Amino acid sequence: MRAEIICVGSELLLGDITDSNTRYLALRLSQLGIDLHYSTTVGDNRARLVDCLSRALGRSHIVLTTGGLGPTDDDITREAIADLFGESATVDETLARALREFFALRGIAMTSNNLKQASLIPSARAVPNARGTAPGWWVTREGRSVIAMPGPPGEMQHMWENEIEPRLQRSDSVIRSRTLKLFNISESLVDNLLKPITPSRNPTVAVYAKQDGIHVRITAKAANDAGALEAIEPVESDVRRALGEFIWGSDNDTQESVVAALLTSRGTTLAIAEAVTAGHLTSLLAAAPGSESFLRGTLITPRLDGASANEEDCVAMARHALQQFGADMGLAVVGCAVEGTDEPMNEIVVAVVGPSKERVTTGVYRSRPHRVRTLGAYYGLHELRRALSSD
Amino acid sequence: MRAEIICVGSELLLGDITDSNTRYLALRLSQLGIDLHYSTTVGDNRARLVDCLSRALGRSHIVLTTGGLGPTDDDITREAIADLFGESATVDETLARALREFFALRGIAMTSNNLKQASLIPSARAVPNARGTAPGWWVTREGRSVIAMPGPPGEMQHMWENEIEPRLQRSDSVIRSRTLKLFNISESLVDNLLKPITPSRNPTVAVYAKQDGIHVRITAKAANDAGALEAIEPVESDVRRALGEFIWGSDNDTQESVVAALLTSRGTTLAIAEAVTAGHLTSLLAAAPGSESFLRGTLITPRLDGASANEEDCVAMARHALQQFGADMGLAVVGCAVEGTDEPMNEIVVAVVGPSKERVTTGVYRSRPHRVRTLGAYYGLHELRRALSSD
Repeated sequence: MRAEIICVGSELLLGDITDSNTRYLALRLSQLGIDLHYSTTVGDNRARLVDCLSRALGRSHIVLTTGGLGPTDDDITREAIADLFGESATVDETLARALREFFALRGIAMTSNNLKQASLIPSARAVPNARGTAPGWWVTREGRSVIAMPGPPGEMQHMWENEIEPRLQRSDSVIRSRTLKLFNISESLVDNLLKPITPSRNPTVAVYAKQDGIHVRITAKAANDAGALEAIEPVESDVRRALGEFIWGSDNDTQESVVAALLTSRGTTLAIAEAVTAGHLTSLLAAAPGSESFLRGTLITPRLDGASANEEDCVAMARHALQQFGADMGLAVVGCAVEGTDEPMNEIVVAVVGPSKERVTTGVYRSRPHRVRTLGAYYGLHELRRALSSD
Repeated sequence: MRAEIICVGSELLLGDITDSNTRYLALRLSQLGIDLHYSTTVGDNRARLVDCLSRALGRSHIVLTTGGLGPTDDDITREAIADLFGESATVDETLARALREFFALRGIAMTSNNLKQASLIPSARAVPNARGTAPGWWVTREGRSVIAMPGPPGEMQHMWENEIEPRLQRSDSVIRSRTLKLFNISESLVDNLLKPITPSRNPTVAVYAKQDGIHVRITAKAANDAGALEAIEPVESDVRRALGEFIWGSDNDTQESVVAALLTSRGTTLAIAEAVTAGHLTSLLAAAPGSESFLRGTLITPRLDGASANEEDCVAMARHALQQFGADMGLAVVGCAVEGTDEPMNEIVVAVVGPSKERVTTGVYRSRPHRVRTLGAYYGLHELRRALSSD
């Protein structure tokens, strides 16, 4: 089964906004085993949109559109679909009533323009939009479908997950993947270590450099979930054998969620001293579930990044934070630029202290100045996780 | 003049990565006054890419491709362009020599695959790539051009700015815009206040809700820069008259850059106490130019968000931070959820204190829990800016 995406909106072609809908839909389709050969962006122009729709329907089984369902004259997706199928849209009384109630409830005046959003052609079925005023359209003709969804990602994703995906005729195969996440190892080293042990076709193994480290993604295509997971399993074991010491999580794990789960399960409280990371580490960790129960406080002294970054000072800072906030553990991250190299290098020192023990490490990273805050934050979380895991 | 973009890469159609090249190129083209009617994404498939290229060249004067210029068999943009023009690619000795030097300098073995990147068809001119190994291709036939650029955004943007844009035949019009940035006012109120005073065609006025507030963008099309700026000027004056008290900056300003400039120009140092924002405010401000000279330190006490957020405590926290870090000013942001409402609401209190005066304000914002950190940080910066401006 083949699908195709058409994103509608002149704002996308003026560079006003970045399109995130294509990536979202591409990922969902690939997980369903539905092939995606093209995605097209077109402006708010009825003739050009009809042209795109017609070509798409000629080569794909499912045509998904996003955008152009608003109440203004610029919104032309409904009109273009009506043109495509040679039908006329009329106001649907059930949809119009729902729309009037929506506006009355909010005490907002409804304009006649809004009635556009209650219109349908005879072949279209309205798709409920729980997050906005524009229902989607679903038109099926001779086994092929055009499905029109709203442009705002929150509305579109909610509609896709609740109204569209559950009703799509399943493909005869599924694609599943497992992502292993690593830190403190380079992308090229991962690549070299994996090359001899990974198959080339199914499953495939891909390596990505991300802000929180290196991600290794194993992807399998099979007749069903069980088959895909069975194909992934031996490859995952091989990768874990080769790179286990660098792996800190998988799939939806983040470094902060892994550390937060460890602190929560142990009932350990934490105090932080940040120099080079200037609040970025605390900000990340505070967004993790349960952080209010273990985060005792943070002291940021931005001026410390400058001069020196020695291990002794770093341990002293961690211990000072632990005492000031009365926590079980103290974490400190300091750093400085390394002099005398051609490329920008940063030295980052991390100390983790408990009441009776301490651990301090220094890492040297190639990075531009603005990246050092992010890098330092992940390095700090990495060392904290190692300290917690080795207890 | 009409342009069209074709992004090449199966990873884009599997949802592995978000395409940011389209937005970048769309913005640059609109600033040049070149119309963009379509942008298409296609996978690593030679026949499908030739089909897209052929259609694009039939309806647009300039066809820009990104991606598919790597050394592997999956990279098929060069081959597809050769097919399109019915020419054969051969290795260009000058390009091959440069490539060999690139690898030798880095001590990396060059594979025969890499020679693909030194190939050209007779009609193509190589476009230097200062950031990578893949040169671009520029082919002109009968007044129409196909320009192939690499996919990685850093390489593509550098090539565009240095090699492509300066050599494009200028359009007979330019598009220029001015963005005014506001805080503490709703998008719909801005919309209503602007409606009676804004023209509908040229310049156009658009309103966007962003994380740091509301942006009002005035865009004019004219024969040249001076004409566009002249058309923007009276509209900008009207917007400033209507909304001046909410405007904190324009164009590339950020709230943190505006505050940083004020603190730097006055030689005022700052200490911060963060509760609800958990380091996010300091992290933003530390990224602004000159922050190392005015940021004295921050105290984060995440547990304060919970119970209460009264103005007295907030002032006390700001004063405590000012004293602990020996700064000229103290800024504190605390917050709590508002009970008994249907929608999630947050109360945010901001205090700004100096040696002899203080200022404290409370705002109530509709927001989901994860948004309150960002909102609180911008609200804190906003109040700090107001305090600095009113001195």
